Amino acid sequence: MKYRLLSEIKNPADVKKLSFRELTELCDEIRLKLIETVSKNGGHLASNLGAVELTVALHKVFSSPMDQLVFDVGHQCYTHKLLTGRFDSFATLRTKGGISGFCRPSESEHDIFYSGHSGTSVSAGLGLAHGKLLSNDKNYVVSVIGDGSFTGGMVYEALNNGGRSKAKQIIVLNDNKMSISENVGSFAKYLAVIRTKSSYMSFKANTEKFLSKIPMGTVVARELYNIKTDIKNKLYSQSTFFEDLGYRYVGPIDGHDIEQLCSAFESAKKIDGPVLVHVITTKGKGYEYAEKYPSLFHGISEFDIESGDPITSSDSFSDKFGEYLCSHAENDRTICSITAAMKTGTGLDRFSERYPERFFDVGIAEEHAVTFAGGLAKNGMKPVYAVYSTFLQRCYDQIVHDISLQKLKIIFAIDRAGFVGEDGETHHGLFDVAFLSTVPDLKIYSPCCYRSLCADINNALYADEFAVAIRYPRGRPHSNVSGLRYDCIELSHYGTESSNTAIVTYGRITSQAISAADLLRDKGIDVHLVSLNQIKPIPEEAYNCLLSKEKIYFFEEGQKSGSVGERLASELLLRNYKGSYSLTAVEDKFVEQSSVDELLRAYGLDSESIAKKVSEEN
Amino acid sequence: MKYRLLSEIKNPADVKKLSFRELTELCDEIRLKLIETVSKNGGHLASNLGAVELTVALHKVFSSPMDQLVFDVGHQCYTHKLLTGRFDSFATLRTKGGISGFCRPSESEHDIFYSGHSGTSVSAGLGLAHGKLLSNDKNYVVSVIGDGSFTGGMVYEALNNGGRSKAKQIIVLNDNKMSISENVGSFAKYLAVIRTKSSYMSFKANTEKFLSKIPMGTVVARELYNIKTDIKNKLYSQSTFFEDLGYRYVGPIDGHDIEQLCSAFESAKKIDGPVLVHVITTKGKGYEYAEKYPSLFHGISEFDIESGDPITSSDSFSDKFGEYLCSHAENDRTICSITAAMKTGTGLDRFSERYPERFFDVGIAEEHAVTFAGGLAKNGMKPVYAVYSTFLQRCYDQIVHDISLQKLKIIFAIDRAGFVGEDGETHHGLFDVAFLSTVPDLKIYSPCCYRSLCADINNALYADEFAVAIRYPRGRPHSNVSGLRYDCIELSHYGTESSNTAIVTYGRITSQAISAADLLRDKGIDVHLVSLNQIKPIPEEAYNCLLSKEKIYFFEEGQKSGSVGERLASELLLRNYKGSYSLTAVEDKFVEQSSVDELLRAYGLDSESIAKKVSEEN
Repeated sequence: MKYRLLSEIKNPADVKKLSFRELTELCDEIRLKLIETVSKNGGHLASNLGAVELTVALHKVFSSPMDQLVFDVGHQCYTHKLLTGRFDSFATLRTKGGISGFCRPSESEHDIFYSGHSGTSVSAGLGLAHGKLLSNDKNYVVSVIGDGSFTGGMVYEALNNGGRSKAKQIIVLNDNKMSISENVGSFAKYLAVIRTKSSYMSFKANTEKFLSKIPMGTVVARELYNIKTDIKNKLYSQSTFFEDLGYRYVGPIDGHDIEQLCSAFESAKKIDGPVLVHVITTKGKGYEYAEKYPSLFHGISEFDIESGDPITSSDSFSDKFGEYLCSHAENDRTICSITAAMKTGTGLDRFSERYPERFFDVGIAEEHAVTFAGGLAKNGMKPVYAVYSTFLQRCYDQIVHDISLQKLKIIFAIDRAGFVGEDGETHHGLFDVAFLSTVPDLKIYSPCCYRSLCADINNALYADEFAVAIRYPRGRPHSNVSGLRYDCIELSHYGTESSNTAIVTYGRITSQAISAADLLRDKGIDVHLVSLNQIKPIPEEAYNCLLSKEKIYFFEEGQKSGSVGERLASELLLRNYKGSYSLTAVEDKFVEQSSVDELLRAYGLDSESIAKKVSEEN
Repeated sequence: MKYRLLSEIKNPADVKKLSFRELTELCDEIRLKLIETVSKNGGHLASNLGAVELTVALHKVFSSPMDQLVFDVGHQCYTHKLLTGRFDSFATLRTKGGISGFCRPSESEHDIFYSGHSGTSVSAGLGLAHGKLLSNDKNYVVSVIGDGSFTGGMVYEALNNGGRSKAKQIIVLNDNKMSISENVGSFAKYLAVIRTKSSYMSFKANTEKFLSKIPMGTVVARELYNIKTDIKNKLYSQSTFFEDLGYRYVGPIDGHDIEQLCSAFESAKKIDGPVLVHVITTKGKGYEYAEKYPSLFHGISEFDIESGDPITSSDSFSDKFGEYLCSHAENDRTICSITAAMKTGTGLDRFSERYPERFFDVGIAEEHAVTFAGGLAKNGMKPVYAVYSTFLQRCYDQIVHDISLQKLKIIFAIDRAGFVGEDGETHHGLFDVAFLSTVPDLKIYSPCCYRSLCADINNALYADEFAVAIRYPRGRPHSNVSGLRYDCIELSHYGTESSNTAIVTYGRITSQAISAADLLRDKGIDVHLVSLNQIKPIPEEAYNCLLSKEKIYFFEEGQKSGSVGERLASELLLRNYKGSYSLTAVEDKFVEQSSVDELLRAYGLDSESIAKKVSEEN
């Protein structure tokens, strides 16, 4: 039987019953299941393959959910899901109504904290631990975090507090020597140094042997352990970065040796005060292609298990962005590009190879990226910061205080705008328009086609005065957008301009609106479709078109509060518009995982819903 | 003559001409000027007094503006202003049209980067340094940053990049052993350890003597210096935190000894690669009261030089918030309070004394504060995070991803909402309503009086289901708001409810609108004033009142884009409102420094402007 042991694990208590030998077998089954599922459903593979033994050992030693396991980002939580009653439903991973690819508290009591954005687990864990302390709950809180997340500042803010805290928190640093792109920065270098300090390891082994002979949990054992650790600190090593910050350091531990892992976690339980367990793992472990190309197998779509090849691939807004930017950078040596650990995802691979001295991967440090870009701009460069919409949320203050206020010209190339599909509620790009609209002088473009994308980049680099955001979705545009009529860069038209009924939209769903206009025409309803390319400020030309209409229908793939549709409505009313106005946008809620097409339908933004909405009232 | 030397400093080159003996005298004159000016105009005193010699030495060794000095937060930039041509205008500090209390590039070519929010100088400096590198500019970039700012994660993000960078950046850590409140966290503890390592100091002295005999700037001297530093690192000390991150460490240096400072900065110039100079200063140095009570003299209003006493003081929203919260916390042991290094400013002093185990000062770590609060809430606590509006901008993603998405109940007590007056463009609380309005399920209150504040806190703690923000201005309410009529907590009325003309507003300027309504009544114009206490969601009761009006005038002390006035307009249009609508808010721009009263007038939000606006069209 393929999943002899795994299929019998109904909850974490079942893990505890297995011998180390069986646990090793269990890990093999888990890997099989991970590869099988992700090859079909897409998802995060390499990071999950690396954390199999680590997670099994956690559930062997700790008792979830009384002990709370907080996984950072969630890229590494699949094994946790398989061990906490979700084996049977695991085939629904990342599908509509199915298991989330990240930790989701509404899914299971074992998922303590939502994850999806990086570097939150130590802060959350510290809060949880203080909550336990204040309510006299002696169970443990464990934050599991990758070395990639350590390039983000929030982790350090949390460590600075945790290291002096009375609340007991265990941090497990899953060091797979690589974040999403190649790991960057001096911290990565530093980890490489301590990784090789065998003194820690050999000492650990001795201590463990010594401790194993003393009844566990006694005061004597704890004291002895603490004394030993002190001696170790003095004799064997310089203090580590973590010890400087107040944490007891346990490691480095072989992250694929379950026995060693369990023994380290048992030690961590016994130590008084905050502990960091440093675990070394291999990203992609157990699947040849993922070990070899971990960043390709970080977040992936469906692929062929035998060959490791993706099932589908085509051009995308990300590719085109990278291509256009390279072509400008060839002639303009002031163009720099910046990514926060998303080089491949944002289409900057080629730029990074061709212009390495002007390419900056700053790690998962979205805030720093913006202010750093500000410094570059101040000294004559044209920095382009390519970032996913959802992660740009991290940068609101830096955009306001360090860019807009200083009138510095930064270009934000915002990828994954709008619905992202299967990654779900933590990853949709539905907020950027709303929060960026509050930033003075910032111009926002939302191209619906490559032609507009190209023009927007050109304008942003050479025509626009202040900071510019260009936002585009995952994937590629629909071919029907070639039917749009452009008089200017700000907006384009489709359908009957003299019609009293207008449909207004922007970005990806322009193609849906075009199809809707066609459907409506077939029904004898002529509409004037206005597709905005520049969504902030709303172009004057849009008011000129719209003020005389009788009915305006706005469709928006974004959050309603702070939407373009809301700003347009307000401005129309201020300009004494007397017609009717309708706004279809994502009402203020978080959007679940589903394919983009399914989501467009669910939120009334596909061609049929648009046509239906307009025809109902015409 | 009182300012014999200082009055002759027209630009930094003049500093270079002075002997060390004269520079010491110059420092005395600067201190006199600082105390004299801040006692009249208010501002940041203690931090500036501490950084006098440090700044003088920087201008002695470096050549601004070719060498770029970036001051973090700007709390310590007054001396820099005095030495860069602003002695004559220094009396206008923090007044309308005068010198800013922070670095402001539009004010001087020597102010490189806007500052006001903490922890940006290392990121900006690194960007500036890369800009120089790419354009072959060999001048230096120096980031000057306090130890308080080191509790913020963005600094660490920048260090992680800077430590491995080819661009030469010098970081000056101004360690005054205290941030705004008492310095917090393990990093502070760590600094205390290395501060006392005399080995560094004595080594430095020797090296300096040695180096001084070799012609400066030669390749030989640099090489020798680097070799020496290597030897030092191996012989004299463990590696420091900074060295782990890739920086050469120089220090600790006596920050009140100009010669030693100059010699350290000269060394920093010579070392290849990134350098951190650790300078120890005394906050408040040279003014007895400020040395004794540095946090009282951090940011202050006008005071009496002889006695150190503030000229005016009265109750405030901050005080009342702290008082109400304490009274609840007495009976409810789940209430926790959190501040990001603003204990006194946010009115949490008493809470911190009475309930130390439930009080958390996390350092200048606004992001961590939110997610940490999320962890507390998840484990049964009621966390109240008190924070200035402008600094909450740092937390947008954490509020969305860690709080709202998880449906966790956190209370945001947002102080300094609206105009803050003299602190100017980096500090006004004009964005919070706009960006918080985009957060699903978050309720926002904006009380105009203590009675509403009290009710809002009560509701937030015991009635509201999800996260709540309560925002209030600096200072105290006007007494005329007692004339408001309340039927419910969401809003209150004033004037003639049957009038076809409505004035709508919220928060502090309710008192201005009341006076305006009185002025209008005297002119024979009856208006119905609606003051919203709950501004998100806009209460249904407001629509009930307003849909039948002929004219609506909305006045808002906040950014227009994303304003309540915009949302109300949009919603009214969607509900087929056919009357006229006017919105007076801060058009999308940054607001200069000025007294609050002056700003209300300038932006059409004082009683006379309101009355004028309404009477013009009636």
